[in-house]
Amino acid sequence: MKNVNASIITIGDELLIGQVIDTNSAWIAKQLNGAGVSVKRRVAVGDSAEEIIQALDEEGSTSDIILLTGGLGPTSDDITKQVLCDYFGGKMVVNEGALENVKHLFEKVFKRPVSEVNLQQAEVPDVCEVIQNTRGSAPGMIFYKENKIYISMPGVPYEMQGIIEQSVIPLIKEKFELPTIVHRTILTAGIGESALAELIQDFEKRLPKEIKLAYLPSYGMVRLRLSSVVLDKKDENRDIDSYFDELKILTKDFLVTDVDDSIPVVIGKLLQSKNKTMSTAESCTGGYISHLITAVPGSSKYYEGSIISYSYNVKETLLGVKESTLNTYGAVSEETVIEMLKGLINKINTDYGVAISGIMGPDGGTEDKPVGTVWMAVGNSSNYQTQRISLRFKRERNIEVTAMMALNFLRKFIIAN
Amino acid sequence: MKNVNASIITIGDELLIGQVIDTNSAWIAKQLNGAGVSVKRRVAVGDSAEEIIQALDEEGSTSDIILLTGGLGPTSDDITKQVLCDYFGGKMVVNEGALENVKHLFEKVFKRPVSEVNLQQAEVPDVCEVIQNTRGSAPGMIFYKENKIYISMPGVPYEMQGIIEQSVIPLIKEKFELPTIVHRTILTAGIGESALAELIQDFEKRLPKEIKLAYLPSYGMVRLRLSSVVLDKKDENRDIDSYFDELKILTKDFLVTDVDDSIPVVIGKLLQSKNKTMSTAESCTGGYISHLITAVPGSSKYYEGSIISYSYNVKETLLGVKESTLNTYGAVSEETVIEMLKGLINKINTDYGVAISGIMGPDGGTEDKPVGTVWMAVGNSSNYQTQRISLRFKRERNIEVTAMMALNFLRKFIIAN
Repeated sequence: MKNVNASIITIGDELLIGQVIDTNSAWIAKQLNGAGVSVKRRVAVGDSAEEIIQALDEEGSTSDIILLTGGLGPTSDDITKQVLCDYFGGKMVVNEGALENVKHLFEKVFKRPVSEVNLQQAEVPDVCEVIQNTRGSAPGMIFYKENKIYISMPGVPYEMQGIIEQSVIPLIKEKFELPTIVHRTILTAGIGESALAELIQDFEKRLPKEIKLAYLPSYGMVRLRLSSVVLDKKDENRDIDSYFDELKILTKDFLVTDVDDSIPVVIGKLLQSKNKTMSTAESCTGGYISHLITAVPGSSKYYEGSIISYSYNVKETLLGVKESTLNTYGAVSEETVIEMLKGLINKINTDYGVAISGIMGPDGGTEDKPVGTVWMAVGNSSNYQTQRISLRFKRERNIEVTAMMALNFLRKFIIAN
Repeated sequence: MKNVNASIITIGDELLIGQVIDTNSAWIAKQLNGAGVSVKRRVAVGDSAEEIIQALDEEGSTSDIILLTGGLGPTSDDITKQVLCDYFGGKMVVNEGALENVKHLFEKVFKRPVSEVNLQQAEVPDVCEVIQNTRGSAPGMIFYKENKIYISMPGVPYEMQGIIEQSVIPLIKEKFELPTIVHRTILTAGIGESALAELIQDFEKRLPKEIKLAYLPSYGMVRLRLSSVVLDKKDENRDIDSYFDELKILTKDFLVTDVDDSIPVVIGKLLQSKNKTMSTAESCTGGYISHLITAVPGSSKYYEGSIISYSYNVKETLLGVKESTLNTYGAVSEETVIEMLKGLINKINTDYGVAISGIMGPDGGTEDKPVGTVWMAVGNSSNYQTQRISLRFKRERNIEVTAMMALNFLRKFIIAN
């Protein structure tokens, strides 16, 4: 068995001017990796025949599987299909299955009249195998050339995801004998990347070369990932698991979780194991913590709701923060977040709560409380803890980091109380 | 004057297994584009010398400017600096400025002892010009080869952004004579991409070839962008503006905004122009609408807060929804969102409000109300409107699309009332 390599080519001028962030590549890479395919390169090019052809040439000489997304829309800036038709030496023909699908979609799902432009989406090169797109009007296309597989998909994430899950992964598993790629991940908090590197430097030196260690810092936390390509199924977990156990012991003071979960998922599992509920009172994070928690499927089992208090008025009337507290100590103060937390637990009758107030910028900072100053309180009906943090980022990242730190603060409180 | 082209190379195994989404490339592309540089290609490769060298060769033969991010961390999986040192034929030396910076950062900002590993970040190839990183410990590096400029930066977004803004853009403006890239963008809602294409097909055919039209669909809306590379400054706006005016007239029934603003920014401007305030009552969106609004700097001028009511309990006690309404019609019903809206405007005394309740999936759907069913109400103290929508995505995207549709519904209500 040998490594099977893939390249991902994303096509669209919008990717080169920064108007959209490419989330497709990461999603595709995760699916391929899970199936045992190593992604070698990801390339983004514009809606230009010359650039698409260059990418096809280069990636075709690098990888066994070349996945393309984008440029299949009904409008004239979308040229991928014609370029592929020419590149693989075909001509355009109507695909009956794709035609049925377009008609069905417009009649039954979109409930709009189908136009000439839409019907053209059923035309495909006669040298490809068609993958029907159950979620949209542009079909997927498979081309074979010199033992390489090229698969073109629409750039709309929901449509592309359907094609990958329903057709591409099964096809790849059928065509290739694939190794298993095993990952083990821990999430740490409270220690920087370089301090972590020193803590585990002896361990790292002893790792066999087939096990790779990666440091993945985000939001003031660091994920450590061990990866191993396993060619023989029966060796799958033996080696990596003993190294992983050692890693967990070495990092135990900073360990958040030893599965590849996000903090909101970890908190959800904790609360469910204790049969407890939670709520949030957010000022500066403006609902972002609540969003992170409710993005987890099934969160209604342990999450009751939030009071987002962006004004003095809401802090006073809904959370019961005293006017005198706000006037004496300010909205960003330990006194205020304690009163927010108590008001929250009183108003929304939950077991745990978290309250946040801070200055996210770019304006609103003072000498005493510069931009990035945040007070947070976590607690239950009988006990609470507070914490002040100072951040030095821009507004968006200040909000994200504050939310993650507040959730980690809450996580520790739930474990201890 | 000729077009100046750039390539962006992002380096890191984490990009190829899908563990992180690459937001750096889009951000960099936007800055370069704004400065008049055309981004030709973006490539992501792993932490592998062979792959980094291949990317340097290929992009060096394509572009005038090659920007690299990632792989400069203090840990052993980060190899970019050594690869660049070998590629450009240098040897490692300590850079005094970078050393000062590392010491300063740890002593004054991070307030942690500086380690041996951190100090190594001050070592750079002796064939580069150093860009001091004011936001982190890994310096930026500039290499020159055969009239091409190669710039290596850390992958941490905040650090990379500082280096681009403070050093890279000024350097590029100094080294190259740059054209102006002009964009004009409208945001439309209520019309699909292909219907829009038919509406403006005559216009599109008449566009001169130096003006490009792009369709950028997202969240059930479509952005249309006209772009033009202007080599002679005095021609800058003449042509594109007359076409842009025509485009706005053609799409007037669907036009949301004719500047490149997001819907939350549009609503903020509307509210400020009317000197009005708003609040939200969110069930299924779980605070995401509130987050989108508060992500806009200065939103505290018009945004008071929200009640996130994820449970019956919070809907009843904080929003005053009647128990009988929930039991008779269910939480996802027109009756419930109307009571949520009235309770919201009563509790948080704002001019406008929006209330949402729906089923985001994967569980919770019924035959009558399948996953993707959403009721929303927008209104003020004297008037309201409701709307039912049916989505067919996964949880995450259902939340995002619901939020954008609710904000657009609110926008139209504010304009009309």
